[in-house]
Amino acid sequence: MDLQAKKTALRMISHGLYLLTINHEGKPNASSVSWLSQSSFDPPLVMMAVKADTQTHEMVQASGQFAINLLAVDQTDMAQAFFRPAQLEENKLNGYVFEPGPATGTPIFIDAPAWFECQVTDMVKRGDHTVVVAEVVEVGVRNPDATPMALRDTTWHYGG
Amino acid sequence: MDLQAKKTALRMISHGLYLLTINHEGKPNASSVSWLSQSSFDPPLVMMAVKADTQTHEMVQASGQFAINLLAVDQTDMAQAFFRPAQLEENKLNGYVFEPGPATGTPIFIDAPAWFECQVTDMVKRGDHTVVVAEVVEVGVRNPDATPMALRDTTWHYGG
Repeated sequence: MDLQAKKTALRMISHGLYLLTINHEGKPNASSVSWLSQSSFDPPLVMMAVKADTQTHEMVQASGQFAINLLAVDQTDMAQAFFRPAQLEENKLNGYVFEPGPATGTPIFIDAPAWFECQVTDMVKRGDHTVVVAEVVEVGVRNPDATPMALRDTTWHYGG
Repeated sequence: MDLQAKKTALRMISHGLYLLTINHEGKPNASSVSWLSQSSFDPPLVMMAVKADTQTHEMVQASGQFAINLLAVDQTDMAQAFFRPAQLEENKLNGYVFEPGPATGTPIFIDAPAWFECQVTDMVKRGDHTVVVAEVVEVGVRNPDATPMALRDTTWHYGG
């Protein structure tokens, strides 16, 4: 397989950029995630690939719950802030205020135009990421008119 | 859970639009698919959600192989052609010429700017779709400069 062609073709898949938040043993945390898609209407499910051997992976596996914070196309600063490990300070992670989600208590960023809380149903450990299937148990929309950030809107890549 | 909020939030996930092709018992077939993401770099894997109780689902399960044909943003006619069942006529499906993929023999549309052939590794039957994890075993790029079609570029929705 031609490695340059592989990179080009796989980067043509439409990916977004999201902030995954989690509450692990009472400690809020957050990281960015890109490989995410809906996977069922009823019940509402999503599938997400999380890099193995990361703290995020450990926390998702241990807690069985997480939230996805959608980002708007103009929130690149907020996205970039979570390329580094999250630092907790009072009710902020890397400077961004969160509040507990109503269903699971998972931290939710108040600047996210929309968010959903999830409960893990299945994990498939295959390759260098794990496919996490999760049920959407609560959602919120603060700005229905936001244009969601797609990875192609940014200078970043995650894929290939 | 507020159903309108659920629809709004889940439709903010970045999805694309692709043509899935398959060779089932010697019979080429194709359908559109939207819920697809990369899920591993090494080996290269993708995850895809396929509606249960469909012919496509049956064929993916039976053959264990399929191909994903990327579409460019200006190929809406080609996308729309596969919202209906595929009709085979010589080397065409719904009027679009295909040739056999080099690794699996799966039909590949010659008008797709890029494509990849996949071998199924895992299936998770959960909800009204099945999560299919598959290894990318061969790729091709015909137009590296194509802008991929994202669902938000179109008037269609698949999610919510």
